[in-house]
Amino acid sequence: MNKEYYLDNGATTAQYDQVTDKVAQISKSCYGNSSSLHSKGVEAERHIKQAQNILADILGVRPEEIYFTSGGTESNNIAISGSILGNLRKGRHLITTKVEHSAVLEVFKHYESEGYNVDYISPDENGRVDADDVIAAIRPDTVIVSCMAVNNETGCLQPVLEIGSKINALKDKPYFHIDAVQAFGKMPVKPESLHADMLSISAHKFHGPKGVGALYVKNGTKIKPVMWGGGHQGGLRSGTLNTPGIVGLALAAQMTYSNLEIAGKKISELRKNLLEFVKEHFKDAVIHAENCSLGHIVSISFPNVKGEVLLHHLEARGIYVSTGSACSSNGKHKSHVMEAMGVKPNLIDGTIRVSFSSMNEQEDVERLKDALKEIIPAITIKNKGKVRR
Amino acid sequence: MNKEYYLDNGATTAQYDQVTDKVAQISKSCYGNSSSLHSKGVEAERHIKQAQNILADILGVRPEEIYFTSGGTESNNIAISGSILGNLRKGRHLITTKVEHSAVLEVFKHYESEGYNVDYISPDENGRVDADDVIAAIRPDTVIVSCMAVNNETGCLQPVLEIGSKINALKDKPYFHIDAVQAFGKMPVKPESLHADMLSISAHKFHGPKGVGALYVKNGTKIKPVMWGGGHQGGLRSGTLNTPGIVGLALAAQMTYSNLEIAGKKISELRKNLLEFVKEHFKDAVIHAENCSLGHIVSISFPNVKGEVLLHHLEARGIYVSTGSACSSNGKHKSHVMEAMGVKPNLIDGTIRVSFSSMNEQEDVERLKDALKEIIPAITIKNKGKVRR
Repeated sequence: MNKEYYLDNGATTAQYDQVTDKVAQISKSCYGNSSSLHSKGVEAERHIKQAQNILADILGVRPEEIYFTSGGTESNNIAISGSILGNLRKGRHLITTKVEHSAVLEVFKHYESEGYNVDYISPDENGRVDADDVIAAIRPDTVIVSCMAVNNETGCLQPVLEIGSKINALKDKPYFHIDAVQAFGKMPVKPESLHADMLSISAHKFHGPKGVGALYVKNGTKIKPVMWGGGHQGGLRSGTLNTPGIVGLALAAQMTYSNLEIAGKKISELRKNLLEFVKEHFKDAVIHAENCSLGHIVSISFPNVKGEVLLHHLEARGIYVSTGSACSSNGKHKSHVMEAMGVKPNLIDGTIRVSFSSMNEQEDVERLKDALKEIIPAITIKNKGKVRR
Repeated sequence: MNKEYYLDNGATTAQYDQVTDKVAQISKSCYGNSSSLHSKGVEAERHIKQAQNILADILGVRPEEIYFTSGGTESNNIAISGSILGNLRKGRHLITTKVEHSAVLEVFKHYESEGYNVDYISPDENGRVDADDVIAAIRPDTVIVSCMAVNNETGCLQPVLEIGSKINALKDKPYFHIDAVQAFGKMPVKPESLHADMLSISAHKFHGPKGVGALYVKNGTKIKPVMWGGGHQGGLRSGTLNTPGIVGLALAAQMTYSNLEIAGKKISELRKNLLEFVKEHFKDAVIHAENCSLGHIVSISFPNVKGEVLLHHLEARGIYVSTGSACSSNGKHKSHVMEAMGVKPNLIDGTIRVSFSSMNEQEDVERLKDALKEIIPAITIKNKGKVRR
């Protein structure tokens, strides 16, 4: 097998070997249903409570404020639908941004189609919204404001601290939800300091298992379930708990946060190396959100290049990147994030996303640089669609 | 470690070792996001399609009619809510039974609280509904009929074939959903022969991973999503697919169905052995649904015994059973199934559920018999709450 250079960590990450082993071990040794009254149930419940404790500690919240879900999409859906359904009397006005992940945006579009009034806040050319624009949109009947912490296509940090603080200063506050799927594991994420009422995370974005996520819900938040059943997790999220997956999520979070600083430094260097190279060799390439990016995501547009063609040329060399977001199913539509940023269609088409994790090394960037040097000139459309070979 | 006698397979099952290994292997070797355009995504997608093929083959349906979910609760919720939301013009009348699992019953109760009209069909003393009662309740504005194939507390087989056939003969049919969570893996389950439009299964009930289930939805069914996002799985169930879990579900299904007949025979013998013993030694014990049970679940009421006390005495001997259903979170409420069957409260309190899987052996039943002989006389409340020791 040829060596692989996986630079698509924004889409999903390789699971830590220790997490894979732990999930397998718990599947074998602790297969009981955490709702069972006997000790096999109690043992499973203990593992779940321990996972809650670990995650609560990292987030700086109370364990009972942590709910386990099937992933980021479900966490976002529960937060948004749940608070809308739990506050029908408050009103029918909702606020989000134009650059959210589809697991947030499509929920709002659904409620818009149901007659709710939704304000989608526009970002600047970096994809960053202005906190004051968000605050200005708030009305007495605003139920929820939802804003991501870090954009999944550009890495752009949103001013969630400023938004949260300003909402918190209001007399009649709407709920504030943060989609922290791309932020968690890359930076400290503290819902209370951010004045968030709800916050979503997904394990497979930080080397944890697929099919498991978590939702922080501040004590006292009026929220209703969106699925009904056995009343697990305080009735907010029914369904037999996925003990091995939940333990895997907690271990992945623990491992990621114990290495946060070292990983952050390494990723910064990888990014710096890549950006210096791009600026030197491709004068007309556009690096998006360069000055507001958290760093693990690098979004570059090459003019007169088809991003998908570039992606396939790279994968032929064992290098994996994405065009836009992988999170839209086989995302072949134009990026709504780039459109909201005002990026020209020609540039949107030539965009690739390089996304790092702590598992990447300088060698990955070196191979990417070599490949770009070779591929870009070969696939750049010179004129009238002619391709130089 | 003392030997364990796990007889609570209705709550959850021990995962096949081969499934544990396969989940770990896929987590390591195939960690890509199935929505990614590059080969790591394509490889994950291929595994998912293969799992769809395996499951479709077992169910006798088309692969594109299989949707993967986070488990039985979500499958049931999508089926019921999704068909209600997809058929708002058809009407606001719904039909289910009084003995459904809470992951079905609570969904109907939710819609009832929203103003929908719900008929809950009563069962006979065995917990079995009469197909004609179900059919008689159908009106032109009935959107969906939902009936489980096998009851989770008693093992009672419901007449789903008769219900399906009779619905199918109607001119203006409602949709028919079968909760097959307890049936799948214990008997052939063929949605088309049963005339089901939707059918739910859950992997952890047949030695597969927790946190993953599937929903069969017949082509052409008008169904809407209950969560919104990246549009995965034809838009019905958004969210990054849990490739390792889905592969694990398919392998567990395959292993279970390749051994169906042998396992069925073994379980029949275990059951026969246990029932003969109970009848001989505990003349006043009541065996529920004895003549309509699929066999892997045995529900026994011991008069003047506290089921929970019995459960803990058994677990002290390494024997795991349940009182009612484990699927209600720490199910301490009275069983709605037993109440619907007209079982007297005194008997409901003294009920245990013994549930077998192919992993059980005669030794498990022998230990259970020995234990019951010892424990029951010791914990039977003789009069005015006095306990003989």
